[in-house]
Amino acid sequence: MPQPSSLEFFWDPASPYTYLAATRIEKLAEESGISLRWRPFLLGGVFKATGNRAPAEVAAKGRYLFEDLQRWASLYSVPLRFPDSFPANSIQSLRAALVAEESDQGPAFARAIMAAHWGEGRDINDAAVLAETAESVGLEADTVAQRMQAQEIKDQLRANTDEAVARGAFGAPTFFVGDAMFWGNDRLPLLKAYLQES
Amino acid sequence: MPQPSSLEFFWDPASPYTYLAATRIEKLAEESGISLRWRPFLLGGVFKATGNRAPAEVAAKGRYLFEDLQRWASLYSVPLRFPDSFPANSIQSLRAALVAEESDQGPAFARAIMAAHWGEGRDINDAAVLAETAESVGLEADTVAQRMQAQEIKDQLRANTDEAVARGAFGAPTFFVGDAMFWGNDRLPLLKAYLQES
Repeated sequence: MPQPSSLEFFWDPASPYTYLAATRIEKLAEESGISLRWRPFLLGGVFKATGNRAPAEVAAKGRYLFEDLQRWASLYSVPLRFPDSFPANSIQSLRAALVAEESDQGPAFARAIMAAHWGEGRDINDAAVLAETAESVGLEADTVAQRMQAQEIKDQLRANTDEAVARGAFGAPTFFVGDAMFWGNDRLPLLKAYLQES
Repeated sequence: MPQPSSLEFFWDPASPYTYLAATRIEKLAEESGISLRWRPFLLGGVFKATGNRAPAEVAAKGRYLFEDLQRWASLYSVPLRFPDSFPANSIQSLRAALVAEESDQGPAFARAIMAAHWGEGRDINDAAVLAETAESVGLEADTVAQRMQAQEIKDQLRANTDEAVARGAFGAPTFFVGDAMFWGNDRLPLLKAYLQES
C-alpha cells in the first residue's frame, strides 16, 4: 500500500473544537513530515446525513461545553471568546474558503475566519466580517463575494461534505490519513501516534 | 473555598471509555496527591435522564468506535477485546460493586469487572462471571449475590445515578473535583492540568 501523501483536515468554522484543533494541526503535520490539506465541509450537512447532532443539543452537554472549551483554550494558550452568534451559519464562510483556495489562500483564510469567530467572538455570517477576513489574507472582498455565488463553488462544498460522509465522517474536525479517520480535537494524540508509527 | 479532598470517578462497566480511563486514573490521582473515590452509576439511567445517547446509536460513530478504542488501548498498552455481549446490561455488576464497597473492595471489584468485560471480552451480565469476579477480590459469591437484591443496594445505585445527573453528568466516565466536572477518557489531560493548578 502506498503511503498517504497528505493529512486531510475537514473543517467547519462553526465548530469550536475545529478551531482548537486548527491551532495545533500545522505543527503536528510538520513534525510528522506530512503535508496538510485543508478541506472545507459543512458540518450541518454531515449531521443531517448521519443522524448525528451538535453537542449543545443535549442540554447538559451544552452547559459543560463552555467550560470544556475554556479549559482546552487555556491548555493550548490560545484566545477563546464564545460568539454571541453561536451556533453560526457557516455556509457563506465555507464558500468563501473555497474561493480563497482558488488563489492558494485556503489555509490562510481558514485560520483567519476561525480566529475571528472563536478567538474574537465575531459573527461569521456577517458579510462585513467575511469581507474583512478576505482582505486580511490579500483577497479582494468584492471579487470573493461575487465568486462565492458561483454554482461551481456551491457544488464543491456539497461534494466535499458528501465525500467526508462517504468516507465515514460524522462530526468535526475530521482528519484522514488515507483511509484512517480521526475525529475530534481530542484525538490529536492518537493522530500523532499514528503518523509516527506509519 | 476549601480544597476538594477527593477526585470522584463515576463509572459504569458498560462504557469502554470508562475502562480505558480506569487504567490511568489511579496513577493520575496519586501523582496529583488527591484521593480517588470510585462511584458506581448507571449510564443507561443517565442517558434516559439527560436525553443523551450512546455513541453507537449513530451508525457512523459506531463504525468508528471500534477503531478508536483499539487506538487508545494501544496508546495505553492495555488489553482490549470487544465483548460479543456489547452493549452490556450493567445493572447487576453495579449492584455487586456497591456490595463490594461494603467490604472496602469497591475499587478492586471495579477494576476486575472492567478487566473481565473489556480486557477479556467476557459477558458481565452472566451470573457466573459476576461470581468469579467477586471471588477474585476475596468476596464470597453467594453472599454478594444475595446482598445485591437488597432494596438498600438498588436504592444506592439509583441515588448515585441521580446525584451525578443533578451535578451535571450526561455520560461516562465522569469525574468531579468538587464542582468541577470532567467527562471522558479524553479529558484526562485537562483533569491532570486542573489538579496540578489547584
